[in-house]
Amino acid sequence: MKILDGRKVSNQIKEEIAIEVDQMKERGEKVPHLAAVLVGNDGASLTYVGSKVRSCKKIGFESTLIHLPEDTSEETLLQQVANLNANDDIDGYIVQLPLPKHIDEQKVLMAVHPDKDVDGFHPTNFGKMALDMESFIPATPFGIMELLRRYEVDTEGKHTVVIGRSHIVGRPISILMSQKGKAANATVTLTHSRTKDIKSMTLQADIIVSALGVPNFLKADMVKKDVVVIDVGITRVPDETRERGYYITGDVDFEAVKEKASYITPVPGGVGPMTIAMLLKNTLLARERHKQKNA
Amino acid sequence: MKILDGRKVSNQIKEEIAIEVDQMKERGEKVPHLAAVLVGNDGASLTYVGSKVRSCKKIGFESTLIHLPEDTSEETLLQQVANLNANDDIDGYIVQLPLPKHIDEQKVLMAVHPDKDVDGFHPTNFGKMALDMESFIPATPFGIMELLRRYEVDTEGKHTVVIGRSHIVGRPISILMSQKGKAANATVTLTHSRTKDIKSMTLQADIIVSALGVPNFLKADMVKKDVVVIDVGITRVPDETRERGYYITGDVDFEAVKEKASYITPVPGGVGPMTIAMLLKNTLLARERHKQKNA
Repeated sequence: MKILDGRKVSNQIKEEIAIEVDQMKERGEKVPHLAAVLVGNDGASLTYVGSKVRSCKKIGFESTLIHLPEDTSEETLLQQVANLNANDDIDGYIVQLPLPKHIDEQKVLMAVHPDKDVDGFHPTNFGKMALDMESFIPATPFGIMELLRRYEVDTEGKHTVVIGRSHIVGRPISILMSQKGKAANATVTLTHSRTKDIKSMTLQADIIVSALGVPNFLKADMVKKDVVVIDVGITRVPDETRERGYYITGDVDFEAVKEKASYITPVPGGVGPMTIAMLLKNTLLARERHKQKNA
Repeated sequence: MKILDGRKVSNQIKEEIAIEVDQMKERGEKVPHLAAVLVGNDGASLTYVGSKVRSCKKIGFESTLIHLPEDTSEETLLQQVANLNANDDIDGYIVQLPLPKHIDEQKVLMAVHPDKDVDGFHPTNFGKMALDMESFIPATPFGIMELLRRYEVDTEGKHTVVIGRSHIVGRPISILMSQKGKAANATVTLTHSRTKDIKSMTLQADIIVSALGVPNFLKADMVKKDVVVIDVGITRVPDETRERGYYITGDVDFEAVKEKASYITPVPGGVGPMTIAMLLKNTLLARERHKQKNA
């Protein structure tokens, strides 16, 4: 059994990007600039955005945090988005989700210019991805692909069972892994809440990507020997014995499943850390494309 | 065994649309207007475009055929596309594929305004489809969904095996059938050229959608009893005994497989006729959305 160490790979990727940024600076070029829009004071969102901004600084990107009050109107937010679209200094930006309930999330995401949409949530990017065109791939599935590539996990012709059909993980990873290319060419089955017998599917799987958000969902008797397990679940379980008051767990009964797996991602330290690395990668790509466009 | 009669359903849909068009006329409203751009004189393309234009006339749509010579430059074609985007009288249009080799097909399809893209080939429409947003669904997968809906084929939780990952059939139908909704909620496996043992997959399938283009690929020993078979293959097999010099066949060994199937589409007369009906349906939708936008 081999651990797919997302923390280690994520750090590698960040170091690689930092080297590229240094070279940009040496050449006297503009460095990538990521902006993040945060509306309100949701605890998890503050943590995520803070971590993204810190990562930018660490690798030498410019970053701008636009923190708006909870009662910001949709109109004001849309104006902010329009400003970011027009601001030539910004290469890419994200609007941290969830937004307060009085704001139409879809309307806001649709307003983000696809060329600056480093989260890859705009339908134009999603469609390009599905049609094998150059795009921004959402960070979590992008991170899974990169993890598989770096560990040279053989996916070609392998039966991959994806659990969960969310727009940000299950759907895109099922598309990406069944396309041509590296860490792809798999035979992919997408399972979800209406699937009748998930166990009969997972038992056949060479690779399982679980993105359900149900702790301990995937047990050892649901997988075959030498399975590759990618655990995308992130659930905060209340725990008073911990300082933070909770602990993080994935979808997989890790201790039992790891005995049968050939590769497995831990939670935390698996897919999670990859997500920020790939957001930074997308921002680097945005800078490169932006430069080409202006050339 | 029940035949999924695409010809019959296609005619029903056309009649329903014709009634709507009559009502539009009675109310003094503009009727839907479809334009088709054809470059060159490819035999099959001439047939398809001709059939689309005739269908428009039959149901009361306005239609415009723009037939350009084989040696039309990419620039001229892009100008034509820009004109169609700007022309408020045109609700939707198609650019018939394939285009001559000196023209970048992707560049042309990207230039079609998504709101007029009744073929549903633009990445923005494809992405909206994949993200469960209102869009134009490509005619062939849209036709398959409609056929399943009209015959009330139970797809919920059913294991559906799609053969072929093309952008116009395999990929979109695998997305659509695994979404929430009618004729959907299926557990979908997408198989393709790199799949190791397709037979082991098709033998499990409650529903098979074959979009491979290989005559007689799907044989009786590859399916289980009561399977639902959707044959999207259309291959022209040379045959000198026929006046046209060829006959049309699908991917399925129809005579043998139909003995085991609960539902099956014939070729011709299955998915094929549905395609034109759904293009007309998309044009009607384009008209309705266009009207709302102008209101």
